[in-house]
Amino acid sequence: MKSFLYPKLNPPSFTWVRPEAADDAVKVHEWIQPLTAEADPEKRKDVDFVVVGVPLSRSSISASGASEFPDAFRRAWKGFTTYNLDEGVDLSSKVAVDVGDVPMHVTDIRRCHDNIIEASAAIQDHFPTSTVCAIGGDHSITAMMVKGMHQASPDEKIGIIQFDTHFDLRDLSDNGPSNGTPMRNLIESGVVKGSDMYNIGLHGFFNTKDLKMYAEEHGVNYITLRKARKKGIEETVLACLAALSEKVDTIYVTVDMDVLDIAYAPGVPASTPGGMTTAELLDGVLAVAKHQKVKAMDIVCLDPQKDSNVQPTVKLGTHVFLTFLTGVMMR
Amino acid sequence: MKSFLYPKLNPPSFTWVRPEAADDAVKVHEWIQPLTAEADPEKRKDVDFVVVGVPLSRSSISASGASEFPDAFRRAWKGFTTYNLDEGVDLSSKVAVDVGDVPMHVTDIRRCHDNIIEASAAIQDHFPTSTVCAIGGDHSITAMMVKGMHQASPDEKIGIIQFDTHFDLRDLSDNGPSNGTPMRNLIESGVVKGSDMYNIGLHGFFNTKDLKMYAEEHGVNYITLRKARKKGIEETVLACLAALSEKVDTIYVTVDMDVLDIAYAPGVPASTPGGMTTAELLDGVLAVAKHQKVKAMDIVCLDPQKDSNVQPTVKLGTHVFLTFLTGVMMR
Amino acid sequence: MKSFLYPKLNPPSFTWVRPEAADDAVKVHEWIQPLTAEADPEKRKDVDFVVVGVPLSRSSISASGASEFPDAFRRAWKGFTTYNLDEGVDLSSKVAVDVGDVPMHVTDIRRCHDNIIEASAAIQDHFPTSTVCAIGGDHSITAMMVKGMHQASPDEKIGIIQFDTHFDLRDLSDNGPSNGTPMRNLIESGVVKGSDMYNIGLHGFFNTKDLKMYAEEHGVNYITLRKARKKGIEETVLACLAALSEKVDTIYVTVDMDVLDIAYAPGVPASTPGGMTTAELLDGVLAVAKHQKVKAMDIVCLDPQKDSNVQPTVKLGTHVFLTFLTGVMMR
Amino acid sequence: MKSFLYPKLNPPSFTWVRPEAADDAVKVHEWIQPLTAEADPEKRKDVDFVVVGVPLSRSSISASGASEFPDAFRRAWKGFTTYNLDEGVDLSSKVAVDVGDVPMHVTDIRRCHDNIIEASAAIQDHFPTSTVCAIGGDHSITAMMVKGMHQASPDEKIGIIQFDTHFDLRDLSDNGPSNGTPMRNLIESGVVKGSDMYNIGLHGFFNTKDLKMYAEEHGVNYITLRKARKKGIEETVLACLAALSEKVDTIYVTVDMDVLDIAYAPGVPASTPGGMTTAELLDGVLAVAKHQKVKAMDIVCLDPQKDSNVQPTVKLGTHVFLTFLTGVMMR
Amino acid sequence: MKSFLYPKLNPPSFTWVRPEAADDAVKVHEWIQPLTAEADPEKRKDVDFVVVGVPLSRSSISASGASEFPDAFRRAWKGFTTYNLDEGVDLSSKVAVDVGDVPMHVTDIRRCHDNIIEASAAIQDHFPTSTVCAIGGDHSITAMMVKGMHQASPDEKIGIIQFDTHFDLRDLSDNGPSNGTPMRNLIESGVVKGSDMYNIGLHGFFNTKDLKMYAEEHGVNYITLRKARKKGIEETVLACLAALSEKVDTIYVTVDMDVLDIAYAPGVPASTPGGMTTAELLDGVLAVAKHQKVKAMDIVCLDPQKDSNVQPTVKLGTHVFLTFLTGVMMR
Amino acid sequence: MKSFLYPKLNPPSFTWVRPEAADDAVKVHEWIQPLTAEADPEKRKDVDFVVVGVPLSRSSISASGASEFPDAFRRAWKGFTTYNLDEGVDLSSKVAVDVGDVPMHVTDIRRCHDNIIEASAAIQDHFPTSTVCAIGGDHSITAMMVKGMHQASPDEKIGIIQFDTHFDLRDLSDNGPSNGTPMRNLIESGVVKGSDMYNIGLHGFFNTKDLKMYAEEHGVNYITLRKARKKGIEETVLACLAALSEKVDTIYVTVDMDVLDIAYAPGVPASTPGGMTTAELLDGVLAVAKHQKVKAMDIVCLDPQKDSNVQPTVKLGTHVFLTFLTGVMMR
Repeated sequence: MKSFLYPKLNPPSFTWVRPEAADDAVKVHEWIQPLTAEADPEKRKDVDFVVVGVPLSRSSISASGASEFPDAFRRAWKGFTTYNLDEGVDLSSKVAVDVGDVPMHVTDIRRCHDNIIEASAAIQDHFPTSTVCAIGGDHSITAMMVKGMHQASPDEKIGIIQFDTHFDLRDLSDNGPSNGTPMRNLIESGVVKGSDMYNIGLHGFFNTKDLKMYAEEHGVNYITLRKARKKGIEETVLACLAALSEKVDTIYVTVDMDVLDIAYAPGVPASTPGGMTTAELLDGVLAVAKHQKVKAMDIVCLDPQKDSNVQPTVKLGTHVFLTFLTGVMMR
Repeated sequence: MKSFLYPKLNPPSFTWVRPEAADDAVKVHEWIQPLTAEADPEKRKDVDFVVVGVPLSRSSISASGASEFPDAFRRAWKGFTTYNLDEGVDLSSKVAVDVGDVPMHVTDIRRCHDNIIEASAAIQDHFPTSTVCAIGGDHSITAMMVKGMHQASPDEKIGIIQFDTHFDLRDLSDNGPSNGTPMRNLIESGVVKGSDMYNIGLHGFFNTKDLKMYAEEHGVNYITLRKARKKGIEETVLACLAALSEKVDTIYVTVDMDVLDIAYAPGVPASTPGGMTTAELLDGVLAVAKHQKVKAMDIVCLDPQKDSNVQPTVKLGTHVFLTFLTGVMMR
Repeated sequence: MKSFLYPKLNPPSFTWVRPEAADDAVKVHEWIQPLTAEADPEKRKDVDFVVVGVPLSRSSISASGASEFPDAFRRAWKGFTTYNLDEGVDLSSKVAVDVGDVPMHVTDIRRCHDNIIEASAAIQDHFPTSTVCAIGGDHSITAMMVKGMHQASPDEKIGIIQFDTHFDLRDLSDNGPSNGTPMRNLIESGVVKGSDMYNIGLHGFFNTKDLKMYAEEHGVNYITLRKARKKGIEETVLACLAALSEKVDTIYVTVDMDVLDIAYAPGVPASTPGGMTTAELLDGVLAVAKHQKVKAMDIVCLDPQKDSNVQPTVKLGTHVFLTFLTGVMMR
Repeated sequence: MKSFLYPKLNPPSFTWVRPEAADDAVKVHEWIQPLTAEADPEKRKDVDFVVVGVPLSRSSISASGASEFPDAFRRAWKGFTTYNLDEGVDLSSKVAVDVGDVPMHVTDIRRCHDNIIEASAAIQDHFPTSTVCAIGGDHSITAMMVKGMHQASPDEKIGIIQFDTHFDLRDLSDNGPSNGTPMRNLIESGVVKGSDMYNIGLHGFFNTKDLKMYAEEHGVNYITLRKARKKGIEETVLACLAALSEKVDTIYVTVDMDVLDIAYAPGVPASTPGGMTTAELLDGVLAVAKHQKVKAMDIVCLDPQKDSNVQPTVKLGTHVFLTFLTGVMMR
Repeated sequence: MKSFLYPKLNPPSFTWVRPEAADDAVKVHEWIQPLTAEADPEKRKDVDFVVVGVPLSRSSISASGASEFPDAFRRAWKGFTTYNLDEGVDLSSKVAVDVGDVPMHVTDIRRCHDNIIEASAAIQDHFPTSTVCAIGGDHSITAMMVKGMHQASPDEKIGIIQFDTHFDLRDLSDNGPSNGTPMRNLIESGVVKGSDMYNIGLHGFFNTKDLKMYAEEHGVNYITLRKARKKGIEETVLACLAALSEKVDTIYVTVDMDVLDIAYAPGVPASTPGGMTTAELLDGVLAVAKHQKVKAMDIVCLDPQKDSNVQPTVKLGTHVFLTFLTGVMMR
Repeated sequence: MKSFLYPKLNPPSFTWVRPEAADDAVKVHEWIQPLTAEADPEKRKDVDFVVVGVPLSRSSISASGASEFPDAFRRAWKGFTTYNLDEGVDLSSKVAVDVGDVPMHVTDIRRCHDNIIEASAAIQDHFPTSTVCAIGGDHSITAMMVKGMHQASPDEKIGIIQFDTHFDLRDLSDNGPSNGTPMRNLIESGVVKGSDMYNIGLHGFFNTKDLKMYAEEHGVNYITLRKARKKGIEETVLACLAALSEKVDTIYVTVDMDVLDIAYAPGVPASTPGGMTTAELLDGVLAVAKHQKVKAMDIVCLDPQKDSNVQPTVKLGTHVFLTFLTGVMMR
């Protein structure tokens, strides 16, 4: 089986088998369909949501198995229905496709990053009206996904809403485009301005002071978790969106799962005590997804190999994705 | 040792040894006593709380070890005192007995269910004024416990307060009386009306749309977790009780532990991200237990084999039970 | 997608995606292909190996997730090549198909068992010359698989080689056809004579004396692990085959994974200290598979949910299967 | 390498190696320096924070590995920067030293306790103006640390703020100065008055009624978690400080990590369902540390051997320590 | 319930409930009965095997939960029959009693040790013809059990067979009678001569050279695992017994579970790579138990809290005990 | 602190603190000393053993945390004495130094590999008579260590003894110099001839047929585990050494820990069922180390993050290292 963009993308490594009897999708794995090279080109026009796996984590500073998340994510679909009971939204009335995984190289990380840029641009070309969900992988992929979008539409100004415990503004000259650098990468390459970045969730003792100074020099907006909690997560998100949407054409949302408290996210090695609760993150993601200018998102830094037995973090990552789609449908 | 209803019930598989020196019970395992066939029949009149184990989980859709919970629950008693410090309530001033376990058959699930109905009815006959706590087992037992109560007192109208992430309204014609069906089972058998059921805690992507439609057709009341949180869990419970107590004689409370967020309940395979916190569930259970019409409860779907090392979920299940008893004493 | 025998069999719940570039199968998941209803009937004649999943474990005495093994088994294929380096045998020169899973019912265990019998008979009808590998599930399925073979060819006398820590000769009148009963079930139903059963691996304190007496009354042959070790596992197997093949037309091999020492098989809850090592079991399975009269086998009682982190037991179960196929090819 | 008080204290069992390039400390392990016997005595005057390990847990009622926490705590430093982003406070502008561990005896618990008293007094003598952080160990060490302070300055009246699920007022005549007795030990030895103790966080079924009666007889102040939550944790702490600071010269803070909900603290075997969240504890600790009279603190009952894979509890314990230091700097 | 020697011994903390229907014991938990103060004194004469729990591990150099083994051991009985299939021996034809646990003090280790000596002597007085099995606890208990035997029969010369990775000959003046010292303790107290000690299983890098020199100075016999394997474990044991039985009246067997390879014994923190396999230890224990002069044994240093999920080590410890009993019956 | 070759090498991230009292090293962490830039150059002449950490695993095909092994290895030293009791060898009479870690780059794998080559050559230059032990890291480092040796002494012919489940002969044109390629890398770069490589331990279904064909074309010698077991591991090693030492000047030993059975090596994700036992590997390593021409070794592919709770694999890796040193001392 070829991916539709083959050889640019690998097909997912497995596909769910849809039971004969099921005429309507009721579970997510019955709803999201792999898009193969053989698929009718006409069908691509109707696509609302595009899922792409970005299985790269050898660019992580600390050893990471986040490259395993795209597969774990797809396996988790079976445990979710398409119906959001809280909001009364049924995802299955929309069309969602899984275009497979960006191909990676074992020892050439630069080539991996180039592949992501290329894939991101190609997806924008083929699905200009769809919402794109990139499933990481580590945070280095965010810079590449956004660069791909920029390459596809150089005239569109892109802004970023980031849920994160860290600035991710490390110096690229230290260790190259690692998972600690995506925001700085975008600033320094001129793709996104610092003042068009809004980081929600910073807290504790997990950023050095010089990164904060860099952020301030470049006008990066950040709201610490303590402040966001006092204002309300939803209200904080709405305020950021209001300010950002004045300045940009397109908003990209990046969810670094390490924004969560470690009690909620054993499968995110970089998560810490004092982070967001599940309810807070889901509220924030739902709020951001409702905004018209949000066109793409990613979920990064979730390492299924470190998750505990019953896979709370993999399930939570999948829930974040579905909650984002729900928000999009509520626009 | 025989159970008092032998051969209807098996005695618990072990008994705690009470230290000689202890004149007063200070730990739960010193307080709750097994009730054997040899016990003085007169003693049964004074019983306030009846505990019965219902170790059935082969009726679960997914493989479950919830059948191990009654024993794990009894072992956990040793870690709790009888004194609730928050409320200043000492359980040991009441009489609690453990009547053992409903006997189960390995390959005949229908016989298991019949045994539960029979045991439930017998307990009602012997302890008409006691509060009954059934320790599951999976959720299929709820229908059987309630049917047994109905059989014992056919004229009493029964209503249900349910803490659950799911409707549990699946079609019995698909796979028989599994753990996905108890509420529908009670509706279809005419034992409880849909409009006398109140489900608190539904959320996320864990129910199909057709179940919601069935719920609405049959008048099942449900308050999603998001709504309950906005109103307050305690206030939500009180509102449900106010409405329900107008309509029925007796209220049965069923606590499906999957209502909890998976971070709090690793030992509940069906728990999900975005569910209740421990504090929310304990508040809800305390509030419901204070109502005069509440006569029985169960705790279901907790699989100790999947719990993590230090057994947070088994301890939480035991805490739910003791909090319920505290509420009853505060009436 | 329909299974080829649909609705008798469910298709596997997922299928591996074969990379475009691969012209020759080098990994097991590229080699074993699902057989769908659409497949050319002519193709069925060439099948050497038939894999069928039998996901039933609610018939287990203790709570078991062995029903999850067929899926875990298929996922594990990706970690194995088709080439056995020790023996220089390449499995990929043969044709292997996966016919999917026997459909199960949640609350009617008898119907599950009937489905297995029916499926086993149907497989024999369609693939009379293939070697059949049934992937359990618990040990109750063995009686049903053998009954199905007997139903398909009533005149063929069947004998059994069993690797097991237990006799599995429990009385069916106690708890029905549970996982403790398959051998007795076959004796009492007249399908296999006790004297045509050879049990290798019994040891320790894991069988009651009365089961041993039953075994002796019915002429069941058994070689304790201690004796088998002294003689050599391979030599023991050869001696059993020599005796058994004189008496029967067809030999069925059943591998209860609890024959292993618990240090090697954390994912088999019934495994015990003092059981077989991995090397011993693989030697035994290779030896038995080389015999011309061996026509079918099963692997049972492996619960992937209890396996440890790196899944040693799931991998070992898969290795047992591949080693069996290797032996068949070496005939 | 000798500790500066050698042989009174053992040096830490390992030291972090500071990279040559680093001119400024940015990580905690680069900031806190071991203080050896060779260090310039003049340097001791400038010390703001003194860390001392107290690796004793064989005095615990239940088997405990809390003696391993001081080493685990030091290893965890590497994961934290010195910069608190929420408060904009940089710890590295202060001087912090690690004076090593109090030496312990394997079979003579009394000698262990005497060593702690002696070490605590010696630290007060050498660092009269520093804030002292004792890293346990179990809760029995609190009584000894406070006794040492009392010995060093007999005229200073000491009060205690305690975060705890338990009273820790057990009778010393039962089992000696175990981890269940420190508060009673201090009352009965006349070192701290019951009315100068404030316990925040008691809840559930984890204290016997007689302990509450003892508390009330001796005027021990306690605010149950339920009440503290209603008032607000920070407000509760401030109210306690206001009352206590009127009565005493010095305040000692003891953080029994079992005050946390077990979902947040798998590495604290005595933690329970219904305890504090991480956010609540951190808020409380920050508030208390800001008070001028707070001179010392300890963190106890954290057993790293029971922590889960990604060490959430060890990280949280370290976060509590750093948050305390932040509060001190905000005075 | 009192223990028969109350207050010298605590009763076990729980007792198994024997099903009514069972007329004959078939499982170990139905066979071994608690011996209470109320039991007919006449019954004590017939006792073949005495089990006593010795739940002390706060005397361990490293933090240990071996104090939890006696309870875990009793809970494990349920998983074993009384019938040893390898040897055709049925334990249930003998009388076995559980006299409960030696009472321990939380903070006075010396008192714990005195209690063990006293209990051991008392058991010898009451059951002079029984075989005594002490269930530790850590290895410090061995010295105390043997001292108690010596106290009961000062004229009987005692020798020791020890299965161990370590000499356990550490200097008592360093840290008192810890788990590293029992053999030296017995030599220095004159209770057992070094030349009447035979240590089987030493290996690797787990003993300092000076301990070996002490061993040689005092004539302690030791056979490294490498040598024992070459000769055969059973043959090694027989050779030791032959030599030792010439010199002493009574043989005490101590099984330090750390003699096992860590792959077989995750629940023994001091076990190491390169130790015995399960089969080797069981062979050794069976061989030693057959000797007429063996009168008592212990199993030590097994920490159930560190065991993995399916409890392989607890099961193995129980198997060692039952195998020992089997050997005794085969005399 | 600088490493002696700084900036070529990073110092180890921590150092053990040697207790004042200890005049002689008895534990490994007291014996092996970090070698800093400040160390007397004269001291380098006396060095017998050089330890160097090579923390690279982002070159692994599957996500790996083997980069964490050097630190885990150093932490494990504390659990081992310097005295090998089996052989009566005391390592502490020799001089061992830890030169720290080869510096790695996060996103430039080629630079990592170049650093290893450079460090290996430098170590050969500084310590021409020492035995070098490289602690990986994944198997890609082997090619680089050997290339460094070759660079330092281009005229010395190097041969390799490899313990491995895999050939590690994958095509470099597929994915660059990953952990699947080191042997091919050395062949293709002309550094080592295929016929001077001896691979012991291949087994099962873990190599594709084409790799075997490549091996045979290039004369790579391999002895499957099955054959090695029949001949005896020690005898196999001796036979390989006899043949190889005729052909080369220097022998490099590489121990891929995946040669072990997965039951013994949970911390080696690539280990498989049917691999070596601990005893077999230790025997093989001891035998090979005794040979005069063996000058260097490495231990690779051990991922401490995947090890189970009590760290059996980390301990085993450390044991392999110490056993190797023992063999060297027995020459």
